[in-house]
Amino acid sequence: MTEKKEIHLRNLEKLFYPDSVAIVGANKVQGTVPHDILKSILKADFNGVVYPVSPKEKFIAGIKTYKYVTDIEDPIDLAIIVFPASVCHMALEQCGQKGIKSAIIISAGFKEVGPHGLAKELQIKAIADKYDMSFIGPNCLGVINTDPRAKINASFARQMPEEGSIGFLSQSGALCTAVLDYAQAKHIGFSKFISFGNKTDISEIDLLYYLKDDPKTKIILMYLEEVSDGQALMKAARDVISESGKPILILKSGRTKEGAAAAASHTGSLAGSDEICDAAFKQAGIIRCSNMEEMFNIAKAFAYQPIPKSNKVAIITNAGGPGVLTTDAAIHDGLELASFSEDTTSILKKNLPKTANIKNPVDVIGDARIDRYNIALSAAFDDPGVAGVFVILTPQSMTDIDLIAREVAKVSSHYDKPVYTSFMGEADVQEGIEVLQRNKIPHYSQPEYMSKAFAAVYNFSLNHYNHVKPAKYADIHPEITSAILNNAVHKNSDYLTEETAQKVLAAYGLPVLDSYVANDAEQAVELAGKAGFPVVMKVLSDEIVHKYDMGGVVINIKDTNEAEKAYNSIIGNVKKLRPDAKIKGVLVRRMIPEGVEVILGVKRDSSFNTVVMFGLGGIFVEIFKDVSFRVAPIDKKTAESMINEIKSSALLKGARGSAIRDIPAIVDSIQRLSQLAVDHPQIKELDINPMIVLEEGNGCFIADAKIMVTLNKS
Amino acid sequence: MTEKKEIHLRNLEKLFYPDSVAIVGANKVQGTVPHDILKSILKADFNGVVYPVSPKEKFIAGIKTYKYVTDIEDPIDLAIIVFPASVCHMALEQCGQKGIKSAIIISAGFKEVGPHGLAKELQIKAIADKYDMSFIGPNCLGVINTDPRAKINASFARQMPEEGSIGFLSQSGALCTAVLDYAQAKHIGFSKFISFGNKTDISEIDLLYYLKDDPKTKIILMYLEEVSDGQALMKAARDVISESGKPILILKSGRTKEGAAAAASHTGSLAGSDEICDAAFKQAGIIRCSNMEEMFNIAKAFAYQPIPKSNKVAIITNAGGPGVLTTDAAIHDGLELASFSEDTTSILKKNLPKTANIKNPVDVIGDARIDRYNIALSAAFDDPGVAGVFVILTPQSMTDIDLIAREVAKVSSHYDKPVYTSFMGEADVQEGIEVLQRNKIPHYSQPEYMSKAFAAVYNFSLNHYNHVKPAKYADIHPEITSAILNNAVHKNSDYLTEETAQKVLAAYGLPVLDSYVANDAEQAVELAGKAGFPVVMKVLSDEIVHKYDMGGVVINIKDTNEAEKAYNSIIGNVKKLRPDAKIKGVLVRRMIPEGVEVILGVKRDSSFNTVVMFGLGGIFVEIFKDVSFRVAPIDKKTAESMINEIKSSALLKGARGSAIRDIPAIVDSIQRLSQLAVDHPQIKELDINPMIVLEEGNGCFIADAKIMVTLNKS
Repeated sequence: MTEKKEIHLRNLEKLFYPDSVAIVGANKVQGTVPHDILKSILKADFNGVVYPVSPKEKFIAGIKTYKYVTDIEDPIDLAIIVFPASVCHMALEQCGQKGIKSAIIISAGFKEVGPHGLAKELQIKAIADKYDMSFIGPNCLGVINTDPRAKINASFARQMPEEGSIGFLSQSGALCTAVLDYAQAKHIGFSKFISFGNKTDISEIDLLYYLKDDPKTKIILMYLEEVSDGQALMKAARDVISESGKPILILKSGRTKEGAAAAASHTGSLAGSDEICDAAFKQAGIIRCSNMEEMFNIAKAFAYQPIPKSNKVAIITNAGGPGVLTTDAAIHDGLELASFSEDTTSILKKNLPKTANIKNPVDVIGDARIDRYNIALSAAFDDPGVAGVFVILTPQSMTDIDLIAREVAKVSSHYDKPVYTSFMGEADVQEGIEVLQRNKIPHYSQPEYMSKAFAAVYNFSLNHYNHVKPAKYADIHPEITSAILNNAVHKNSDYLTEETAQKVLAAYGLPVLDSYVANDAEQAVELAGKAGFPVVMKVLSDEIVHKYDMGGVVINIKDTNEAEKAYNSIIGNVKKLRPDAKIKGVLVRRMIPEGVEVILGVKRDSSFNTVVMFGLGGIFVEIFKDVSFRVAPIDKKTAESMINEIKSSALLKGARGSAIRDIPAIVDSIQRLSQLAVDHPQIKELDINPMIVLEEGNGCFIADAKIMVTLNKS
Repeated sequence: MTEKKEIHLRNLEKLFYPDSVAIVGANKVQGTVPHDILKSILKADFNGVVYPVSPKEKFIAGIKTYKYVTDIEDPIDLAIIVFPASVCHMALEQCGQKGIKSAIIISAGFKEVGPHGLAKELQIKAIADKYDMSFIGPNCLGVINTDPRAKINASFARQMPEEGSIGFLSQSGALCTAVLDYAQAKHIGFSKFISFGNKTDISEIDLLYYLKDDPKTKIILMYLEEVSDGQALMKAARDVISESGKPILILKSGRTKEGAAAAASHTGSLAGSDEICDAAFKQAGIIRCSNMEEMFNIAKAFAYQPIPKSNKVAIITNAGGPGVLTTDAAIHDGLELASFSEDTTSILKKNLPKTANIKNPVDVIGDARIDRYNIALSAAFDDPGVAGVFVILTPQSMTDIDLIAREVAKVSSHYDKPVYTSFMGEADVQEGIEVLQRNKIPHYSQPEYMSKAFAAVYNFSLNHYNHVKPAKYADIHPEITSAILNNAVHKNSDYLTEETAQKVLAAYGLPVLDSYVANDAEQAVELAGKAGFPVVMKVLSDEIVHKYDMGGVVINIKDTNEAEKAYNSIIGNVKKLRPDAKIKGVLVRRMIPEGVEVILGVKRDSSFNTVVMFGLGGIFVEIFKDVSFRVAPIDKKTAESMINEIKSSALLKGARGSAIRDIPAIVDSIQRLSQLAVDHPQIKELDINPMIVLEEGNGCFIADAKIMVTLNKS
């Protein structure tokens, strides 16, 4: 852990659990942030002392006010700075002098307003670093800690949320107010609620680490607009998940942001920043949500209910139609409808009316009251084949809605299996929904949302997002690669020739074919034998571009006899047709047999750094865009998952009677490529296209490769 | 129009607008359907006379009650039958005798409980037919007409909905109660609300035609579990849309229903009933919704707001984050963010604070009050490049939520452009949302839902779902096909041999190659010339299965010389290796040149009857399932859309430097296949796989085909 990170973690403890808080820049004007924050803290019954600081006022809201923070006689744990941006640095400097280690800078007018603001932002960051201070913001709504030990609403939110187990982080302050309002209506509680704004000092990464160890937080939600350090985010997520088991849900905007308009490689053009973000989140075990409602739908399931042991659910409904719709959704989301045991079936048969459907989904029929729901619920929970229960209710004239809600809460409390509900409608069902929400039974406005949440929780429970342990190949020659890349940079050449690119790949043990240069027929025969028949021969001459047209290429040379003939024919043709050309020799290389063409690529991403792509070549890449991405470094399991993820990989596995291809050889190549890309940041983009994959056990061979070089780094 | 349909339409008018209603089977027991329906009618202030009929009671709810319906002295327009299923037929018989032409049968216990119930259902249907009566139900919630001219709540729903322009039809009664409850809370009004239950007599088709001409209905919503007559539904939808311009939204369950487990053809295995339903709805212009919320999200947009003139929207928000999320959603749904005119930009620049974002999405900043929303709204509406406006609000402490809601309603009322809103949160924004809903401004709980609704409305406005006018080919020989199929049925053979299948296709002008039989070398040479070189020759013998292995096939025969040699070689080989085999001759056929392989297929669907499939052959079908479906009959435009819809059709259009293929020839083949399939219902399944498509202008040729025959029809 870096020193700064340690400082942050220490300071964050005081930031969330301060004994004393200074509101620096408070005022008396109701409806303004500097005033409302003080009121928020007082209203929430803060478990500590608050000190308003104002150059003008003697008291605010009946509380003694200090001219400068340095005037306060007692030590201060947390400063909340609400001065305009223009004087923030002075306020922060005084906080530093006072020995305050934690601050929340609410004020806007920094980076987000342009270069002038950015300068002010760098200035406050420097002051914080000087004093070993940590601060959240600027340009944020503030921070809330519902823990009774602190009970601090250091924000200008309209209300203090309920206590709960959700830690919420947001890059957007405005979204926070919507979230708080939504959560209040639905009785969703939070452990910590943090608007982190411009994340100048404390970032979402620091906060993830803090929440990892926060005993009040069971699940972490984040709204993120921009990933500044993707690798750090992935590492933090993996640390949180593997060490604490807490799920992380992120709503990330910018999904459809257009990719780089013109990319020099396939990989470049296919790997849009959003696809990369998707891949990276998946790699790190982060659950990506597509809107706020979906995020809370899943969060409720995690926060309130046990983790299901299997994907087999029972559906209980008083209306056939919604039962069918929910079944559709469950199957679509990868769940299964549990087959009931004989016991369950006989209980349902005995106790439900004849017209009821006793198979899953169980239809207790429109006129069902609490008794039928009780029977179906208990029977479903008791069935060992049922991992979770979905309860649907439509408000018929005889439906005792809130009694049934109470019954769901009561019955489910006896079982270690999750129950989710959907009371359909809005007006008449409202009271029942309130009962469910107060009892921490997740309720969903549409029954289809239950299966999405269930699937998210279940899939999370299946995966163990441990850190990748990429193979470190020893049979490599990074010094060769470095020399080639440095030379390219030196020569201001942003593109390696095919031959040079092959050398770079060869240095990392990637399967390029050795090639030899023959200067006479005898040597050609010898080298052909060394390369291994069949071979291909190609004239080497800087003057000759279209080698095929000049008769400068012979393929499929099968033996020594043909090799001699081929050499002589090439030299003869070229001398005749291009007597002016300088012949450097004849290149001899083993001929690559037929196989399946795949493409491997590398791209740099501004958030996640190195990204590796895999796909089948040709139409599969160009028309179907059937490719997979991963953020490097990549280990064996990840490389395998890249292959399995694409649809066309069936063609590598013997689909349609074709031969099974050498998948382990591809897995090896992906890992070597990952290591090459990580070791050499000068590689800007790379396409191996195609690599020919032979039958099982016969390896693969790179037929062509392109490498683009970054010139402004070396 | 059939006679029955005319009767239905006449009777439906009385059903929705009765002057007198008999509740047949009413009782005094509160909380039961027979009682609650009477109360519903009374409570809604029915604009007519209601007559309870009960064998036991003298009066119910203070109203004189009749023993039998025939006892009522006045004529009765509508009977609502609430007797148990066991006596319904008697009640209906009496209604018939009384001369009542319209009925709603609420009672359950018919088809849905098994064969015994089905018998009762057929019985009541027969009675209705005898008296030229029409009835809705049985097994339904009833019917509601909010039109003040009728004001009838002939249902046991908890409440009468508000008046509005949405006509709602539902196969599930229980879902209706949820819909009514949802709509009540959101102030969504209905014109007609119909639970049609088992649709024994009046079906959703009849109701669609009724609503087409109902002046109170602007948009039709339907929940459907089972499509009984898909062709009729498609025709009705096209009639409604083309004649009245009213959109039809359907929520259809059963999306993931497993297809036929083992299908004999590619087409059979790929065309699941849900994919077919999707295709059919799209063909007919029906908007398919995936849940109730989505259906009402789109319905609100249609019902309350003008149709946008383009896909260019302006987004106005007081929070950056949701603005970005909404932009993402808009792009994803095919909309564009409008580029503002110079006028708009300068107005925004002049009147909004410096920190505001004056580009689209416009961010009026968290502390915005009504004035800034007014400026941004007016400017956006005034901009000729803006076709519609999305307004987002997050509840900041200074946000005057309900004033802004009022302002949105006021400003937008002056423009013929749609405005949609999303006030994010739930508790504090509730009052503002109420204002919007009462003013018929569509409100969406998540801002992303605005773009989905906008896109649905806009796309509907672009399409004109006129009836298909399939080409009727005259150069066909249906009698040949009929003879072959009848012969197969006669011989109890459910599968045609390749040669016979080719004859069936040839009879409809599909591009099979003529083949000839030669009995000596001279004839072979002549026939080869007739077929056109290059040709293929194949021995004809029932005893020889593996013709290739016996040397019985020669391909790529280029001239007369080779033709003679090939014939002699085939005869020689076969005579030598299988002296026992009886040789019927040598088949001579033009050799199909290389081209792109496509697959065409036909399948029967229980709802939509004839379905045609198109795709590229091999991996594209088997691995990518990149195929398209349409319900026959298919016209030229539809056939073209089938080709354009699949991803791999790029390979027919010259992708990756390949030749452009003869697409018009495929279009012709699809239409001929459609006609063949429609003309001959005995064809159960059909695969043309592959058909080889040559370069532009050179046509296509069927290389192989399979036809499965239905034996139990002829």
